[in-house]
Amino acid sequence: MREIKFSENVARIDMSGIRKIFEAAGSDAINLGLGQPDFDTPGHIKAAAIKAINEGFTGYTVGTGIPELREALSSKFKEENGFSVSQEEIIVTSGASEALAIALAALLNHGDEVLISNPGFVSYNALTEILGGKAVSVSLAEDLTMKPEAVLEKLTPKTRAIILNSPSNPTGAVASRADVKALAEIADDHNITIISDEVYEYFIYEGEHVSPASYSDNVITVNATSKSYAMTGWRLGYVAARKDYIAQMLKVHQYIQACANSIAQKAAYAAVTGPKDSVNAMREEFRKRRDVLVKGLNELGMECALPRGAFYAFPKVSNSAEVASKLISNGIVVVPGTAFGSEGDGYIRISYAASMEDIEKALGIMEKVL
Amino acid sequence: MREIKFSENVARIDMSGIRKIFEAAGSDAINLGLGQPDFDTPGHIKAAAIKAINEGFTGYTVGTGIPELREALSSKFKEENGFSVSQEEIIVTSGASEALAIALAALLNHGDEVLISNPGFVSYNALTEILGGKAVSVSLAEDLTMKPEAVLEKLTPKTRAIILNSPSNPTGAVASRADVKALAEIADDHNITIISDEVYEYFIYEGEHVSPASYSDNVITVNATSKSYAMTGWRLGYVAARKDYIAQMLKVHQYIQACANSIAQKAAYAAVTGPKDSVNAMREEFRKRRDVLVKGLNELGMECALPRGAFYAFPKVSNSAEVASKLISNGIVVVPGTAFGSEGDGYIRISYAASMEDIEKALGIMEKVL
Repeated sequence: MREIKFSENVARIDMSGIRKIFEAAGSDAINLGLGQPDFDTPGHIKAAAIKAINEGFTGYTVGTGIPELREALSSKFKEENGFSVSQEEIIVTSGASEALAIALAALLNHGDEVLISNPGFVSYNALTEILGGKAVSVSLAEDLTMKPEAVLEKLTPKTRAIILNSPSNPTGAVASRADVKALAEIADDHNITIISDEVYEYFIYEGEHVSPASYSDNVITVNATSKSYAMTGWRLGYVAARKDYIAQMLKVHQYIQACANSIAQKAAYAAVTGPKDSVNAMREEFRKRRDVLVKGLNELGMECALPRGAFYAFPKVSNSAEVASKLISNGIVVVPGTAFGSEGDGYIRISYAASMEDIEKALGIMEKVL
Repeated sequence: MREIKFSENVARIDMSGIRKIFEAAGSDAINLGLGQPDFDTPGHIKAAAIKAINEGFTGYTVGTGIPELREALSSKFKEENGFSVSQEEIIVTSGASEALAIALAALLNHGDEVLISNPGFVSYNALTEILGGKAVSVSLAEDLTMKPEAVLEKLTPKTRAIILNSPSNPTGAVASRADVKALAEIADDHNITIISDEVYEYFIYEGEHVSPASYSDNVITVNATSKSYAMTGWRLGYVAARKDYIAQMLKVHQYIQACANSIAQKAAYAAVTGPKDSVNAMREEFRKRRDVLVKGLNELGMECALPRGAFYAFPKVSNSAEVASKLISNGIVVVPGTAFGSEGDGYIRISYAASMEDIEKALGIMEKVL
């Protein structure tokens, strides 16, 4: 058996550091490592899925997604995000993961540069590199947001896209309206594309969610029902963009995915058009947990910017890997900041998508061991 | 608004010809264009999915797929396909589409060549080109199978993979054991990889299904529950291969997909471990329809090799586009052979995953208009 030559783009990237920890976590550990709500999918959404199954809605759908869902998303963007897209400007995908993949696949030629916050969500760098592009780091400001000036400094003639993720994983930071507007202007001025990953949009505790597509046409908006409606396992995301983007992304989507899960599409329709009580209840619960967690961390002497969105705290620590590994060996799973990029060194990510009881227990253990 | 520069690999591929027809078909047309069983997902599989929903199995799963499903697939490969893979050598994917995408992404560097039958399933060429590879056509023999000699003729130092699809879409041809064995030897001798797409394995009417992985380790086996269990909308596929392949494919899978739909994984477990009555009933029904369709086509003077597998007839016609468009304008949806490659010219693909009534009605119309 001789060695097979693999794709160099794939061979040189790493497995996700988060996934490694997720998959290594003992079943009795307190898991503050997960990027998913610790809530069940709301009942009316599950009921819609069960109805779809019982009615035999189990075949391929149109590649772009069922029309009623795209229509509902079109209304959502108008009402909640302040921009207009028709249902022909939306593709329903298999999670935000696929949405990001088709956006980058449609844009990148070999060596094209993508500006990505450092630290930032693990997939951005990896997908860029798998697809032959070059990930270029943008350092964050003191408040952990990505500043227009920092982006401008990294622009080159090879810059093809900027990935904006507000609210942000792993930092919990929320971009200001002024910054989003300035980034949209940069995209317009330099004819580059903002890929705006808005999966945490409903989890903002201070400030407001601003979609760059409300300021520019050079935007691919990526979102999903995963975090918003406690539906991570359903793998249901979507992209919205003007038609020339959609035409290219749709080809990639057709061949790598065909269509999103038919049942999840019906579930997503119920989610998007249904009552928002469960979303609001989750947000308020996350807010309470955030306050307890951040107060607890501060009392332990840990410096931690108040996360204004998402469900992560990103406190400073002396040494990411050491602290994370000490916590894991004491039964608390957290993710070292380095999993999110070189400049995540000196931080750990603590998810508060975990019960208040677990958060309080974890703080107690941290007091003893750190 | 200036023009955005897109990926050249994506820009130069076409939308799937099948999807175009699927999406253009009038709702009252007789649809013989579809690549999916016209059966509902069996009850015990739906029940397992509903149970998963009710039990709140709605979060991320481990990236490779739930262990019980991988264990069941490991047994399936041993019992049905004659080769051994552990559950660590299996990744559960979002359909065979994603499985093919991660296999090619793991293997291809810029300009690497992939040998693909012409005609062949539309995704093979497209995915190869999207990922920067070069699709190289292998002509089919008179019986519409891909012959080892034809493959040998196209080998170059840049050949990285051969895609084998038996039973075949669009031809319905089934590769012989001798040919599969010879292809496996070619893979071993030249250190290239066979990507074996076996999604139609349960629909063989004459002959036997032979997995190349029973003869070689240089094989990535791609399969799905989609066709076998009338589960196309669930998007549930899988790959099996030795560990060095899995390590690379898993990285791509993690970033483009995270995990397959959690509920579909539970459904697939019920499918793979459950009774095969529904599979057998579908196969026998397809066989009857095939016999009626091929006999009818022959009586109309159309030359049509008897399809030994899948659920497609691939008769010769004077002019693919002309005949397909004449049939479509008379209310019968078929796919011109050219949708599957240049050498599909002179053929149309007729799916018999449609009711006997529709098949007979279509034959009646064809008698009048052709």
